[in-house]
Amino acid sequence: MSDVIDPRALFTLSYGVYILSTAHEGKFNGQIINALVQLTGNPVCMAACLHKDNYTTELVEKSGRFAVTVLEESAPLKFIGVFGFRCGRDFDKFGECNYELGEDGLPLVTDYSLANIELDVLSAQDVFTHKLFVGQVRRARLVKEGYPLTYANYHRVKKGKSPANAPSAIFNEVK
Amino acid sequence: MSDVIDPRALFTLSYGVYILSTAHEGKFNGQIINALVQLTGNPVCMAACLHKDNYTTELVEKSGRFAVTVLEESAPLKFIGVFGFRCGRDFDKFGECNYELGEDGLPLVTDYSLANIELDVLSAQDVFTHKLFVGQVRRARLVKEGYPLTYANYHRVKKGKSPANAPSAIFNEVK
Repeated sequence: MSDVIDPRALFTLSYGVYILSTAHEGKFNGQIINALVQLTGNPVCMAACLHKDNYTTELVEKSGRFAVTVLEESAPLKFIGVFGFRCGRDFDKFGECNYELGEDGLPLVTDYSLANIELDVLSAQDVFTHKLFVGQVRRARLVKEGYPLTYANYHRVKKGKSPANAPSAIFNEVK
Repeated sequence: MSDVIDPRALFTLSYGVYILSTAHEGKFNGQIINALVQLTGNPVCMAACLHKDNYTTELVEKSGRFAVTVLEESAPLKFIGVFGFRCGRDFDKFGECNYELGEDGLPLVTDYSLANIELDVLSAQDVFTHKLFVGQVRRARLVKEGYPLTYANYHRVKKGKSPANAPSAIFNEVK
């Protein structure tokens, strides 16, 4: 086995598709992510990875909080595109969707949503181009029962693409 | 929304099912994990989360290396059980499967495998009961084309269970 990284091998990893949202000083933003995993059960912690250049990343670092919306399989490409292919610096993504405010003021998207999860940031770590956040879950609610959208479904069925600012197999907001 | 963490909300997250394997001073071990994500594209880095008490975790910390095998959908429960429900301290898991050795001596499982990925550990971080490793991918090969086993499939179709040492929705080797 030579020193080769075959992208087809990386593409066999499975992910969900989520909106990661945050709020800082009255400004909301959010972006599509797939790099999200639960780390621990007691207390419940998760890891999420964002590109350093993204506006959402800047707001998460400043606010120390973020929320996750788990998208359902029926979420249309057009809806995903609002959070995945536009930049929140000059466009109000939350003017394009329905949401509720969590107890700490985080915007929780309710369109095409199976669950909303609210987290406090415990740590942030640089990993080259990206920032890896570890967050502790404060609240998690099921919005409705259903099938989650997977990254495989997004690519195979919906023919979705990844924006330019994304590593292979990872979604990221275009800065 | 009250301060409640509904486990059904956590259960909407999507994961694959992987064997994380390592080698240290001639000793091999491995365990089933689902908490694995690609973080960056250039260089290619991934994060993996293991319970602190697990033997695999100890060997990864000592060796500074680990490999990931992406399991295919047809992987039987009995095979998964070898890596998911037994402890490698007193049982040779690699006596129960077919594997090849990578260039750095890591055991790469070839049974029910779609891909093998070899990584060097860049950092390790304590997250309460678990350890979060960031690794840089050195080599990644596609073993064959196919559909990856997902955690949802494992639970819904195969009726798999999580061992006692696992947080909700996370696999972990029984120590």
